[in-house]
Amino acid sequence: MNRIALVVVVLAATSATLAMAQQKPEDEIRYRQSVMNVIGRAMGPMGAMAQGKAPFNAAVAQKNSALVESLMGLPWNSFGPGTDKGAPTKASPKIWQETAKFKEAAENTQKAVANLAAAARTGDEGKFKAAFAEVPKSCNGGCHDDFRLKEARN
Amino acid sequence: MNRIALVVVVLAATSATLAMAQQKPEDEIRYRQSVMNVIGRAMGPMGAMAQGKAPFNAAVAQKNSALVESLMGLPWNSFGPGTDKGAPTKASPKIWQETAKFKEAAENTQKAVANLAAAARTGDEGKFKAAFAEVPKSCNGGCHDDFRLKEARN
Repeated sequence: MNRIALVVVVLAATSATLAMAQQKPEDEIRYRQSVMNVIGRAMGPMGAMAQGKAPFNAAVAQKNSALVESLMGLPWNSFGPGTDKGAPTKASPKIWQETAKFKEAAENTQKAVANLAAAARTGDEGKFKAAFAEVPKSCNGGCHDDFRLKEARN
Repeated sequence: MNRIALVVVVLAATSATLAMAQQKPEDEIRYRQSVMNVIGRAMGPMGAMAQGKAPFNAAVAQKNSALVESLMGLPWNSFGPGTDKGAPTKASPKIWQETAKFKEAAENTQKAVANLAAAARTGDEGKFKAAFAEVPKSCNGGCHDDFRLKEARN
């Protein structure tokens, strides 16, 4: 690595650390929980349509999936060092122990919801349902099962 | 009102009531707080740019203002009847007493953030800053000052 590249990396790392340091752990915990809460609510009407409990509505699918796609990029920076405690949280300590696996799970989830939003934009019910069926595999199977506790801890 | 119109209105009202009844007051309180929390975080980088504390970045302005615009439509249905208590909340009882004024404040805020997102899409720093300067007038002056308490109540 040449000197300029090294300076760039150090500056980027410092900047990231400073950005994180601006937020208290409890604020980071509250923020990531808030994002997940809003995502969860937006998933509701899509789940109902995917399961045939509500008639397919292309506009509802598009609006909610676009929102989920926007939100799904947000919580990950709030799982930084030192944010494993500070307020009641279901975040498993594994998040900070198996960071590479957690990062991969987060990326897979972002891909799944990006695919869902793309499918919803086509307005095609079948494509929407097929893409929606993939989401729990990354959200629950790929992430919550491994990295979310059943009960909140302090 | 003819009979068909009446049926449509009654069905719409029933459907809205059912939708509200599905959520417990504490869930509604948590949801609207979550939305506001995510909005607040997205306002941060925009505020820094508007105040000259960070250099203007058109992509950051566009991304954050689009997110805020999407989110600002979400919390209002969660201020329904019976959601004035159930969990700690800064929501003033006035929200349920002066519903027309609250609705107007909510609409003004939505307009202000829609204007902000439109200004950000132009990529023009001056337009962004001018639109951003209008946001606190509706968020704080038009809504928080009147309808948000300083301390959370149960």
